[in-house]
Amino acid sequence: MYSEKIKIFSGSSNPKLAKIIGEKLGQELGSVSISRFKSGEIYVHYEETIRNCDVFIVQSFSHPINENFVELLVMIDAAKRASARTINLVIPYYGYSRQERKAAPREPISAKMVADVLTTAGASRIITIDLHASAIQGFFNIPVDHLTALDLITNYLKEKIAEGQIVNPIVVSPDAGRASTAEKLANYLDAPFAIMIKKRPKHNESVITHIIGDVEGQTPIIIEDLIDTGSTIVNVVEGLKEKGALDAFVCATHPVFSGPAIERLDHPNIREIVVMDSIILPEEKPERFKILSVGQLLADAIEIIMQGGSLSTLFKSRGV
Amino acid sequence: MYSEKIKIFSGSSNPKLAKIIGEKLGQELGSVSISRFKSGEIYVHYEETIRNCDVFIVQSFSHPINENFVELLVMIDAAKRASARTINLVIPYYGYSRQERKAAPREPISAKMVADVLTTAGASRIITIDLHASAIQGFFNIPVDHLTALDLITNYLKEKIAEGQIVNPIVVSPDAGRASTAEKLANYLDAPFAIMIKKRPKHNESVITHIIGDVEGQTPIIIEDLIDTGSTIVNVVEGLKEKGALDAFVCATHPVFSGPAIERLDHPNIREIVVMDSIILPEEKPERFKILSVGQLLADAIEIIMQGGSLSTLFKSRGV
Amino acid sequence: MYSEKIKIFSGSSNPKLAKIIGEKLGQELGSVSISRFKSGEIYVHYEETIRNCDVFIVQSFSHPINENFVELLVMIDAAKRASARTINLVIPYYGYSRQERKAAPREPISAKMVADVLTTAGASRIITIDLHASAIQGFFNIPVDHLTALDLITNYLKEKIAEGQIVNPIVVSPDAGRASTAEKLANYLDAPFAIMIKKRPKHNESVITHIIGDVEGQTPIIIEDLIDTGSTIVNVVEGLKEKGALDAFVCATHPVFSGPAIERLDHPNIREIVVMDSIILPEEKPERFKILSVGQLLADAIEIIMQGGSLSTLFKSRGV
Amino acid sequence: MYSEKIKIFSGSSNPKLAKIIGEKLGQELGSVSISRFKSGEIYVHYEETIRNCDVFIVQSFSHPINENFVELLVMIDAAKRASARTINLVIPYYGYSRQERKAAPREPISAKMVADVLTTAGASRIITIDLHASAIQGFFNIPVDHLTALDLITNYLKEKIAEGQIVNPIVVSPDAGRASTAEKLANYLDAPFAIMIKKRPKHNESVITHIIGDVEGQTPIIIEDLIDTGSTIVNVVEGLKEKGALDAFVCATHPVFSGPAIERLDHPNIREIVVMDSIILPEEKPERFKILSVGQLLADAIEIIMQGGSLSTLFKSRGV
Amino acid sequence: MYSEKIKIFSGSSNPKLAKIIGEKLGQELGSVSISRFKSGEIYVHYEETIRNCDVFIVQSFSHPINENFVELLVMIDAAKRASARTINLVIPYYGYSRQERKAAPREPISAKMVADVLTTAGASRIITIDLHASAIQGFFNIPVDHLTALDLITNYLKEKIAEGQIVNPIVVSPDAGRASTAEKLANYLDAPFAIMIKKRPKHNESVITHIIGDVEGQTPIIIEDLIDTGSTIVNVVEGLKEKGALDAFVCATHPVFSGPAIERLDHPNIREIVVMDSIILPEEKPERFKILSVGQLLADAIEIIMQGGSLSTLFKSRGV
Amino acid sequence: MYSEKIKIFSGSSNPKLAKIIGEKLGQELGSVSISRFKSGEIYVHYEETIRNCDVFIVQSFSHPINENFVELLVMIDAAKRASARTINLVIPYYGYSRQERKAAPREPISAKMVADVLTTAGASRIITIDLHASAIQGFFNIPVDHLTALDLITNYLKEKIAEGQIVNPIVVSPDAGRASTAEKLANYLDAPFAIMIKKRPKHNESVITHIIGDVEGQTPIIIEDLIDTGSTIVNVVEGLKEKGALDAFVCATHPVFSGPAIERLDHPNIREIVVMDSIILPEEKPERFKILSVGQLLADAIEIIMQGGSLSTLFKSRGV
Repeated sequence: MYSEKIKIFSGSSNPKLAKIIGEKLGQELGSVSISRFKSGEIYVHYEETIRNCDVFIVQSFSHPINENFVELLVMIDAAKRASARTINLVIPYYGYSRQERKAAPREPISAKMVADVLTTAGASRIITIDLHASAIQGFFNIPVDHLTALDLITNYLKEKIAEGQIVNPIVVSPDAGRASTAEKLANYLDAPFAIMIKKRPKHNESVITHIIGDVEGQTPIIIEDLIDTGSTIVNVVEGLKEKGALDAFVCATHPVFSGPAIERLDHPNIREIVVMDSIILPEEKPERFKILSVGQLLADAIEIIMQGGSLSTLFKSRGV
Repeated sequence: MYSEKIKIFSGSSNPKLAKIIGEKLGQELGSVSISRFKSGEIYVHYEETIRNCDVFIVQSFSHPINENFVELLVMIDAAKRASARTINLVIPYYGYSRQERKAAPREPISAKMVADVLTTAGASRIITIDLHASAIQGFFNIPVDHLTALDLITNYLKEKIAEGQIVNPIVVSPDAGRASTAEKLANYLDAPFAIMIKKRPKHNESVITHIIGDVEGQTPIIIEDLIDTGSTIVNVVEGLKEKGALDAFVCATHPVFSGPAIERLDHPNIREIVVMDSIILPEEKPERFKILSVGQLLADAIEIIMQGGSLSTLFKSRGV
Repeated sequence: MYSEKIKIFSGSSNPKLAKIIGEKLGQELGSVSISRFKSGEIYVHYEETIRNCDVFIVQSFSHPINENFVELLVMIDAAKRASARTINLVIPYYGYSRQERKAAPREPISAKMVADVLTTAGASRIITIDLHASAIQGFFNIPVDHLTALDLITNYLKEKIAEGQIVNPIVVSPDAGRASTAEKLANYLDAPFAIMIKKRPKHNESVITHIIGDVEGQTPIIIEDLIDTGSTIVNVVEGLKEKGALDAFVCATHPVFSGPAIERLDHPNIREIVVMDSIILPEEKPERFKILSVGQLLADAIEIIMQGGSLSTLFKSRGV
Repeated sequence: MYSEKIKIFSGSSNPKLAKIIGEKLGQELGSVSISRFKSGEIYVHYEETIRNCDVFIVQSFSHPINENFVELLVMIDAAKRASARTINLVIPYYGYSRQERKAAPREPISAKMVADVLTTAGASRIITIDLHASAIQGFFNIPVDHLTALDLITNYLKEKIAEGQIVNPIVVSPDAGRASTAEKLANYLDAPFAIMIKKRPKHNESVITHIIGDVEGQTPIIIEDLIDTGSTIVNVVEGLKEKGALDAFVCATHPVFSGPAIERLDHPNIREIVVMDSIILPEEKPERFKILSVGQLLADAIEIIMQGGSLSTLFKSRGV
Repeated sequence: MYSEKIKIFSGSSNPKLAKIIGEKLGQELGSVSISRFKSGEIYVHYEETIRNCDVFIVQSFSHPINENFVELLVMIDAAKRASARTINLVIPYYGYSRQERKAAPREPISAKMVADVLTTAGASRIITIDLHASAIQGFFNIPVDHLTALDLITNYLKEKIAEGQIVNPIVVSPDAGRASTAEKLANYLDAPFAIMIKKRPKHNESVITHIIGDVEGQTPIIIEDLIDTGSTIVNVVEGLKEKGALDAFVCATHPVFSGPAIERLDHPNIREIVVMDSIILPEEKPERFKILSVGQLLADAIEIIMQGGSLSTLFKSRGV
Repeated sequence: MYSEKIKIFSGSSNPKLAKIIGEKLGQELGSVSISRFKSGEIYVHYEETIRNCDVFIVQSFSHPINENFVELLVMIDAAKRASARTINLVIPYYGYSRQERKAAPREPISAKMVADVLTTAGASRIITIDLHASAIQGFFNIPVDHLTALDLITNYLKEKIAEGQIVNPIVVSPDAGRASTAEKLANYLDAPFAIMIKKRPKHNESVITHIIGDVEGQTPIIIEDLIDTGSTIVNVVEGLKEKGALDAFVCATHPVFSGPAIERLDHPNIREIVVMDSIILPEEKPERFKILSVGQLLADAIEIIMQGGSLSTLFKSRGV
């Protein structure tokens, strides 16, 4: 179905997702050798010709984020020098996306640095999912295909509701700043919504101060773009429980899951954690974790990118 | 106090503010001739040498925005070719800031295009106030000094409260997406706050659906970064009135005031509209309009930029 | 005849010409929505996919020139972010072309700024007609296809001469600086030529001081690249009349026609004004105005650009 | 008078002029070793530190033009890598300036290529004299200080007229395309002027077809920006002689003098050839050659550039 | 002695060396907070103003190399956005320097990628020591000050020889490709030299095949730019021992010391290992390790860079 | 076999090789007119359309190197402006390659300047053979296809050995710095090898100090990347003779042959000089000169570049 001219390679961060994308496209992953010298330097060698090919490199900015980022830079450089026609980065999770503005003087805007550096190395296009801040698209002058997993989440939840497994759903935004995504999901599910008001006294910390909306006797559906340490989510579900809510469904695109997040989120007040495979997770994990795959979504996007057409056919929920 | 090497020039958009900045710095504005040919082409001629000088150009992206934008480009080009040492843009109001991401496919990110184009023309630095989206700082690779008028507004309101002119203040965010600014102001004033939930069925339109928080018998203080057509604000104050609130104080940094905004905002439910002079307003306007000047703030920033030092000394409220 | 991969869009400046180009190519114009917010900000949305397409945008830098210029920048940005393969600007009239050098200190070279900015925004190629100064081609590092309307004018005049409607033609250059075009036209028509010597005491003003060549009893054919306010032309035809010439034919590529130019050029000493549709003109205009279309010329150029081949086949008169 | 931070170096093309500039500035030329390997490769070594210095390199694009051009590139590269603060190119004669536009398809615009390449190598500024086409200034985005030798020529001629050595002067433009310079000179001298109409059937050839203006019994003052092979000038003076003119004064900024130009211009119908030392000439040359120095002009320009100020104080005749 | 405008900051890789540099310059290190979020993202905050300052950042590309590299990128970005006047990178050890060319198809040239990325992030200058390949200087277009530790090593050895601690010295190049450094050292010490011929069947492996030169009864002085795993050195000293040499002195600029290198190099056939503090080493290490400091060298270089002057005064041996 | 879209043009330096390449590809060379004005300026005109074509320009940086280099720049500029799709430079010999690093302060890195300038002019790709320093590949960010002539040399020598014309071969590296190439060749020929140790007191001079390895009664095969003045080679063969070696075979890729090199190399101790046609040589030359053609190698590379595939199939000896 595809010409030999499209080749998909996987970095070290998420080979499982890369393989799914390849299968959906009916295509084996390209062969690339990635190794590390004793000194820690990364070495990359494409083991098949990529001359004149449209190369897609799948790499998430997940743990260990800086290793994965530099590995991607080295992969781009090698592809550029091997005369790839275009170098398309499939970055299911774009890390450093929370450093997208200066909140204090003399801070970096690391998400912009990452964008500039990827472009300098030789990237032709970015394909990514649910950026923490949409304006990051504007950090690039190469095309960015910004996909969303919200349809996947919506469809999953609708089925659960139809099956009667979720009763009295109420969509909850864990943060005033992200209310608009919650509002969208509430509309899709035809459910009410509520907002948690919190403060962030320091980085990686938060204190919930109010819950706006009546959650008593309802099943909260919490929606986030990413879950990092999980401590905010735990505060949220406990806060909801105190207000008389049932056990919650927690949904997020990117399971960053830093530190003891998995243990922490294996919490009695959580019915289910629904996340995508944009970041690879350990095979062994508690039962309440449900993983949906963005593999088909990314494969469809690659197909459209190569053949022309509009990515907006891929989802009703959010634009590109 | 300043060397002759600093020269401040005004574009056509806001000569009044430029003059205030010059006065605060104890310096006459530089002489520049800006004219338009019959064909509409802009012609610029600096009437004094700017060789080796640090040039500051004051221009807001206010009505007529595209004329003012192109005029600035022509001014930059002329300064660059006249061997200015640096070209510093004082853009009190950065227009196109609401087009900072793609909300639908095949849209522009005009705020990024503006940033790229200013840099290409030859800008060395941007000094601006209360960007609609902070991530726009990251659209530039030249330094951006991002100031805020929130301290000016806070101080003004505190005095009013102290004088007993505002009773039972409650800060109201007219939009869930901007709750964090309202939250900050509420903290500064030690007042409660409330949020309006609205929908935007189309561009330039909005429908309020809820008010969260109890406003009865209170004086709402509405805070915005900019007021455009004013129709949202009118909806908000009417909605508040229905809920039993007193007449409101409406505060915003940038009085864009498109179309009949001024007439519309001369509304019985509004006690006062407090805006900055980042955009020039007609001399004649209704009594309830109160203009605060950002002239001192910008002059201080220019002084710090030239002499070194930290802009964070200028305000406690929001970072740079 | 063309693949779906070529799409032609029209900016606001000259939809009529864009439509002609589309018809000549047997292709409907692409659907794009261009609107202005109340604040004056331009918003663009392509209403069909342009992914991987070769996009041609037709936009003249005519009145209102700065609006049309910024609109084009926004259209380019949106096309770039929508993954157009190439973005080809069809700029029938390239404004700001008379600001192509510094004639005084501390002036801009606006024609260069425009070139840089178009390239930064994302243009891949420029197609234009009869630039005021040929060196503007060198302001670009992207390819410029520089066409000429001189063949269209020559053919039209030859027919008039053959029909006996023009007797004793003499080509007149209204300006020493443009004598070479007049010389070329005189050669094509096998006619003598004359030159007007003028001074420009100020911008947009001119005073004729001599006429070189014998015009008595002859039909002057005045040739220009553009006519702006028309006052020079009126001076020229009156000067020629005083020297005993017959009523003149006035020919120019670009009818900028600023201010009362149309009324002014409806002048008894002018037999006919022959201009191109590179700039749109009102439907209602005096009888002596004759409009020739550059639509076929531009359509042929687009065809050659897409299929390979030499634009020099399009005209004998002037190179590309 | 100058800090040690300014250093002036001479390339191989015109050490005599460089030395004059240094003397006028009261400064020895910097020590640089320029050599050629047997393979023809140029090697450059600055023999004194230039770290943090403002370096001025004097190099004309005269015979052998390509050697001189590449030598300049190598000098710039070495200066850049030696941490010069700025690299200022004093290019008294900017060669390739007649290739500033495409006159036929598939030609280069070499003057633009030269500009781009100088900038890429690391130039910070260009100081040059009487460019063949003013629009070449716009080929650069670094500052260009464009000087003119017209005042030097004017003053020289005025003195000659005052001394009675030139009777009945008439300024003659040897080419319609350069009439405006002749017109200026005529104004300065308060003299009439005439134009030669010529054709260029091929590169480096020209045929005069008319003389416009009455030259009988007058002393023609021919003004050009450069004299290359001299054959045009010889045609012009012979044509003038046939029309009854006296022997001519021939003035030009740049004595390119290719091939047998010097012998050819040692012509009985020429009283004097007045040229600048922008290009070095052999010590031995016919008596009728008069060399004026641009050394003071360039030294003054460098002084102003370093200290700030306006170059327009250097001449009344033509802008910068 | 220095103006406040110079500020030196240390990254995480080698704070000890940074402190020495500061002390030599009589200046405290600037205060910067560098932290890592739980997600592994690096966060940087300069805790004092750096506006208009010349910032020097000390960071070696030592273990963990990719963390240190990304940390440096983030530090540069933050400095750029905080309006530092220049951003000077002091990179005592430039990692990835062994990937400076393609030795096989479809490999990266990572040393170039690193250079491009540092420049894009905002670096103004590189100060480094003993690059593995000198051509890496040419990977940059910003100035590179390339220092050498060879004088330090030479002086140390000369003293040892003078004290009679080294008898019959012979300089040994462990690799044919690096013979020129050994040749230089032999000249400085007035000693003979020998070469080891080795093969590299794989990356990080090597097999010695010959020793050229007579080493019997002599003290080998082995010279390298860097020591990585140490296995080559062990092979070399054992090979020398077999040929009758005395215990060796092993000298290298950069102690990369990957894996068990320190244990491995604590070898009976080695008298002393002399390395620089360009890479930080553990406090506890075997007695035979001798550390010399490049702190004074770097401090002197910074002083010269700021005040102008020639770095060649710093060393006779190899300079740039 | 090829589409019309590939066009091969020859610069002035080596039309013979260009013709061979064309023949191997079954394609006539494209028609381009290259001339020089009397002033020395180069003028280029492509005499057939190259719009949308993949253009290959064959130009060696041989004598006169600077003329050939500038000619190539002008050819690139003309191709770019004529809308070539890609501009591929076939540079069989890349001159200035010995200036690839700073060996002394305030020197240029001319090989990098050349790389930057070619890229700025508009090159899309470089195809070259046996660069003096492999790291020069990293001076480019466009793809570099780096070929080697080592297989050609190896095959030629193997045949000679098989025919018994070379007895007791020993590969000799004339320079410690180039030992690795000699080592490779020795492996291919299964022969021993030796190294000459020399010093370079000045540029273009060298003094041999030792020969390492036993050459008595053997046929030395000397391998170099280029031969410039030939004086080193003469020293080497004389030195070998003194040590009892037979007459030598001298092999090199690039016959730069500056000054009297050809006469000098017609030396009794040399059996044969084997060089490539990467640089054109005079028809008449001494019998002992043997020229092998890289025409087939370059033609194969062009074919692979256009059709995709791996250049590594072209040779076993050295990577790309």
